[in-house]
Amino acid sequence: MNEFVRIVEVGPRDGLQNEKTFVPTADKIALIDRLSGTGLRAIEATSFVSPKWVPQLADAAEVYAGIARRPGVAYPVLVPNEQGYERARAVGVEEIAVFTAASEAFNRKNINAGIDESLARFAPVMARAKQDGVRVRGYVSTVLGCPYQGAVPLDDVVRVARALFGMGCYEVSLGDTIGVGTPAKARAMLKAVAQAVPMRALAVHFHDTYGQALANILACLEEGVRVVDASVSGAGGCPYARGASGNVATEDVVYMLHGLGLETGVDLPALAETGRWLAGILGRETGSKVGRALAA
Amino acid sequence: MNEFVRIVEVGPRDGLQNEKTFVPTADKIALIDRLSGTGLRAIEATSFVSPKWVPQLADAAEVYAGIARRPGVAYPVLVPNEQGYERARAVGVEEIAVFTAASEAFNRKNINAGIDESLARFAPVMARAKQDGVRVRGYVSTVLGCPYQGAVPLDDVVRVARALFGMGCYEVSLGDTIGVGTPAKARAMLKAVAQAVPMRALAVHFHDTYGQALANILACLEEGVRVVDASVSGAGGCPYARGASGNVATEDVVYMLHGLGLETGVDLPALAETGRWLAGILGRETGSKVGRALAA
Repeated sequence: MNEFVRIVEVGPRDGLQNEKTFVPTADKIALIDRLSGTGLRAIEATSFVSPKWVPQLADAAEVYAGIARRPGVAYPVLVPNEQGYERARAVGVEEIAVFTAASEAFNRKNINAGIDESLARFAPVMARAKQDGVRVRGYVSTVLGCPYQGAVPLDDVVRVARALFGMGCYEVSLGDTIGVGTPAKARAMLKAVAQAVPMRALAVHFHDTYGQALANILACLEEGVRVVDASVSGAGGCPYARGASGNVATEDVVYMLHGLGLETGVDLPALAETGRWLAGILGRETGSKVGRALAA
Repeated sequence: MNEFVRIVEVGPRDGLQNEKTFVPTADKIALIDRLSGTGLRAIEATSFVSPKWVPQLADAAEVYAGIARRPGVAYPVLVPNEQGYERARAVGVEEIAVFTAASEAFNRKNINAGIDESLARFAPVMARAKQDGVRVRGYVSTVLGCPYQGAVPLDDVVRVARALFGMGCYEVSLGDTIGVGTPAKARAMLKAVAQAVPMRALAVHFHDTYGQALANILACLEEGVRVVDASVSGAGGCPYARGASGNVATEDVVYMLHGLGLETGVDLPALAETGRWLAGILGRETGSKVGRALAA
């Protein structure tokens, strides 16, 4: 393997929205600017989901307006519907992310709609984004298991990924929301989806609840994926997942990628330093083993 | 992959010798007996290295004498020299482990001898073990990096592994003592050693200092290894490694193996429960993510 892997840093959004501590707006802005300074090319900045549901990111507009946007860096934001799209566009957002689950039960429980209805709800957002020249990234969650229905049929994962790509998402991120997957299952899932969506348009998003994230990423890299979501300092997690641990730490992913001879463009010591800085704000130790090891 | 993987549980030795807390003898015995109750077939029980160097295991004889040895379970103990061998045999030890580093600098720093001299020192122990029908396992440490010399030439790893196997070790465990390895390097190392020692006689031993252990194990499983060292609750580590984290947690390894369709014979919930029990004795949270997730 001797290629470039694009890291999509999701700490400021997927990370912070699942942390108990509310991070002050100025610190969120500083976090994003520090992250762009490490060489990351894609940083999910915040979420325009209603503050009623995601109070941790209620300051989405202020955060987005405050960051120092670097040329060449994408700053996608999460958008659930047209209302969110309008709020995002009002502050100049140029890339959004939409999301749905591959699990019928997860969708019904969380957004009170089945898979098909949840996809249909994106249609007006996708249409406006196309008109406005806004890039759209798609998330499929619960691709390897669901807290409500258990197993998730591979056909549903493929169907949802194909639909998002077909609706115009330039990239579809496949998320093991509850972190239960293991490498052979992750690989089989990716392989099945890659029959329907080109591999270059796929990303993987693993949570480390059972410690499997890096092994799963390795299996998916071997299968050909070249975009990996990760969260600096291992911030966040899924509130529905059992256990305390959440997103895989970006630092640990980058360490592995560099060791494999894959390029990321990321300055690892600077990233680890940022992860420790964030951990300080969150009032705990960094969730990255590389972050701890490099500090010792 | 649809085969059996033998886990060599090293928590009671490699784990406890590197923990700050001295675990009372009765608890050590209870730990080993609980571990054998989970279905593990190999449990490294203690070390007959001088208590001057390893005070945490000064009660080696009492521990070994106190465990309820189950038929079909191997209880190797670490032995550094003839004196240790005699102490071990006096309490009925039937399997020992000898150890050396692949790094010239590491050997010189720790035992004041180069690689060749360190190997020569084992000759009398190996001869007596053969005579007594005692099985010998060999450890090669620093196979992917050394805290003193940095890179370790692959040729040195191969030479030491070949020598230990040639001297009569039935199995050679390859250890990334400071946890710096990444999957491609781990795989290349294993592949090189397997040219000199049959794969069935090789084990891998990864530390999780940089979070890479499971990914490295996955790569080595793909390469054909079927014996994996691990430490319940992630106990211990290498005192020479930077960062706080140490051995890969057995629970996390077993979770991955079972997910890959590989059999271990281990009752994972019982193992996770034992890991949490040990963590309580050590006065901290379990170092296993699976252990935390299953408790939630």
